[in-house]
Amino acid sequence: MNPSSACLDLIREQVGRALAEFLARQRDVLVSAGEELLPALDAMSGLIARGKRLRPAFCYWGWRGAGGEDRPEIMAAAAALELLHTGALIHDDVMDASDTRRGQPALHRRFAARHADSGWRGSADGFGTGTAILLGDLLLCWTDEMFRASGLPPEAIRRAQPVLDRMRTEVIAGQYLDLLGQAAGNETAASALRVVEFKTAKYTIERPLQLGAALAGPEDDALSRAYSGYGLPLGTAFQLRDDILGMFGNPAQTGKPTGDDLRAGKRTVLLATALARATTEQAAVIDRHLGDPMLDEAGTAEVQAVIAATGALTECERMIDAKVRDALAALSAAPVAPEVSSALTELAIAATARRD
Amino acid sequence: MNPSSACLDLIREQVGRALAEFLARQRDVLVSAGEELLPALDAMSGLIARGKRLRPAFCYWGWRGAGGEDRPEIMAAAAALELLHTGALIHDDVMDASDTRRGQPALHRRFAARHADSGWRGSADGFGTGTAILLGDLLLCWTDEMFRASGLPPEAIRRAQPVLDRMRTEVIAGQYLDLLGQAAGNETAASALRVVEFKTAKYTIERPLQLGAALAGPEDDALSRAYSGYGLPLGTAFQLRDDILGMFGNPAQTGKPTGDDLRAGKRTVLLATALARATTEQAAVIDRHLGDPMLDEAGTAEVQAVIAATGALTECERMIDAKVRDALAALSAAPVAPEVSSALTELAIAATARRD
Repeated sequence: MNPSSACLDLIREQVGRALAEFLARQRDVLVSAGEELLPALDAMSGLIARGKRLRPAFCYWGWRGAGGEDRPEIMAAAAALELLHTGALIHDDVMDASDTRRGQPALHRRFAARHADSGWRGSADGFGTGTAILLGDLLLCWTDEMFRASGLPPEAIRRAQPVLDRMRTEVIAGQYLDLLGQAAGNETAASALRVVEFKTAKYTIERPLQLGAALAGPEDDALSRAYSGYGLPLGTAFQLRDDILGMFGNPAQTGKPTGDDLRAGKRTVLLATALARATTEQAAVIDRHLGDPMLDEAGTAEVQAVIAATGALTECERMIDAKVRDALAALSAAPVAPEVSSALTELAIAATARRD
Repeated sequence: MNPSSACLDLIREQVGRALAEFLARQRDVLVSAGEELLPALDAMSGLIARGKRLRPAFCYWGWRGAGGEDRPEIMAAAAALELLHTGALIHDDVMDASDTRRGQPALHRRFAARHADSGWRGSADGFGTGTAILLGDLLLCWTDEMFRASGLPPEAIRRAQPVLDRMRTEVIAGQYLDLLGQAAGNETAASALRVVEFKTAKYTIERPLQLGAALAGPEDDALSRAYSGYGLPLGTAFQLRDDILGMFGNPAQTGKPTGDDLRAGKRTVLLATALARATTEQAAVIDRHLGDPMLDEAGTAEVQAVIAATGALTECERMIDAKVRDALAALSAAPVAPEVSSALTELAIAATARRD
């Protein structure tokens, strides 16, 4: 995200404050079980503090687009999405055996290091994984709790809860399809796009917008369709940008080493497009490196060269442009106030812009 | 649990029906993402179908004890606890690297085998672990959804939700303390008992009873205290029985191989008691086998002999008897109807009885 985006800065600050207040309340519950839980809470808090607040931002503007007023309670409800997202990332990093998240050691690595440094018994990696599974679970469970405790009226929460329920089931379903696609290895660009729809487009943009709208009032079919028309293509464009950044980006910006997706064997749309266009020799280069946990800089550079040479990089940039255009066309026809339209335009550009 | 326990049989049937209905509704959501999700749903459903329904039973009787009528909606709300519990067990088995659960291969092992049998790419164990993390997450997320969709009035759900929230945070906190205790290896019988309080006693008995009571009506201090007075010692006795069964029990009854706790390096109260009473030689036997993933029948028999010889087995049986007596004394003073008192007496005995 572009950190200079004005509307996002304000949301970030308020969402950050709501999260800090919620975590301070949970501190007391954890301490009642034992002081030994505090390092775990600190690790979660640190990770949460470095989030981009993209899903809360879409939830907030979804609310405003449905006529909701600017009030602190919506920020607390929207902030709950950061707990869900951080919990999902902690579990993702275990599944992908990632070393790094948001520019720091992944949570499971951090606790494995703590185990090793303390000279504890048993497997340090096992301790790291166990801790990450439990802390991810805690954040998933806290999502609903924070959402309900936002201070919005009970009928608003009750109206919106099915959207949150559906969003969670969809994102986990999308992640499972992703895992299955990596394993079965028969991912085409089309099937990779279906994974992206569930894992990213609905989860990051469409559902947060609709969640905000459901908090603001009874369902408005035209608005809900407009949010889908904007959210689904934009979400796909966002994931395509993420794929490109993961393959070609600057680790200082992404917070992840270049080539991590490749190391994890992720069949991204970018990679599936390259494979569909590759010669036998080019495909062999990708095949040799995809899923190799020891992949180094030279190997990453070879795959980068193939992706560029096949035209897949250009093709994905073209898709991003087309999807963003589709999203903005749907937005221009949406029944929302001008300041909402303007903020969602700004968010669309910030979420998908090149960073080079 | 004793399968002939009459009140539990009826609850089992109704809870099972409520769970089957909920899972059938989720099937449609999952199919909208992809048919490939159906084997995952079937695996979860199979595991859920074999649950003992202990937490729903305490929730139901907690409701009845607070004056709630016998109606199907309370069964659906109580049944949600089985989703939470099954999700937690799936994650536990990953953390403990257990092969077996409820008499069948653990979920992560089952999906690892599916990967291997299909000749898929990448690590079969990685696929099994990833699937188990995601499906456990799904069940944790579905807990709230099923609880809210029970059909009980919104104000009843709203009143009870903080109990469910607290219960989840406490059980995860207890599991983390357990993991830390295994790693740091400085578990005394007293610190093991604190883990048991959070991980088992509150989670299995005290909070489910209080959850049922909160669904039935506004908090009644005397009842809430009586449920704690019954639930905490009974929950500890239940865990002590589980420790003994895990060490000396029949796998056909427990659904887990004998010695699994030992292999996972779990410092149970039983083991901590044995260590506190052991001679240097006896302690060395335990130390040699504790946390050894390759522990065999002969090694398990050596540890069994030490536990018996130190008097720890007798001491734990004595503690179980004392805790059950404390629980029943609290129950006899509880402001509940005679049929509730009688059902809770029956449950206390069923949950802690010897099985030899």
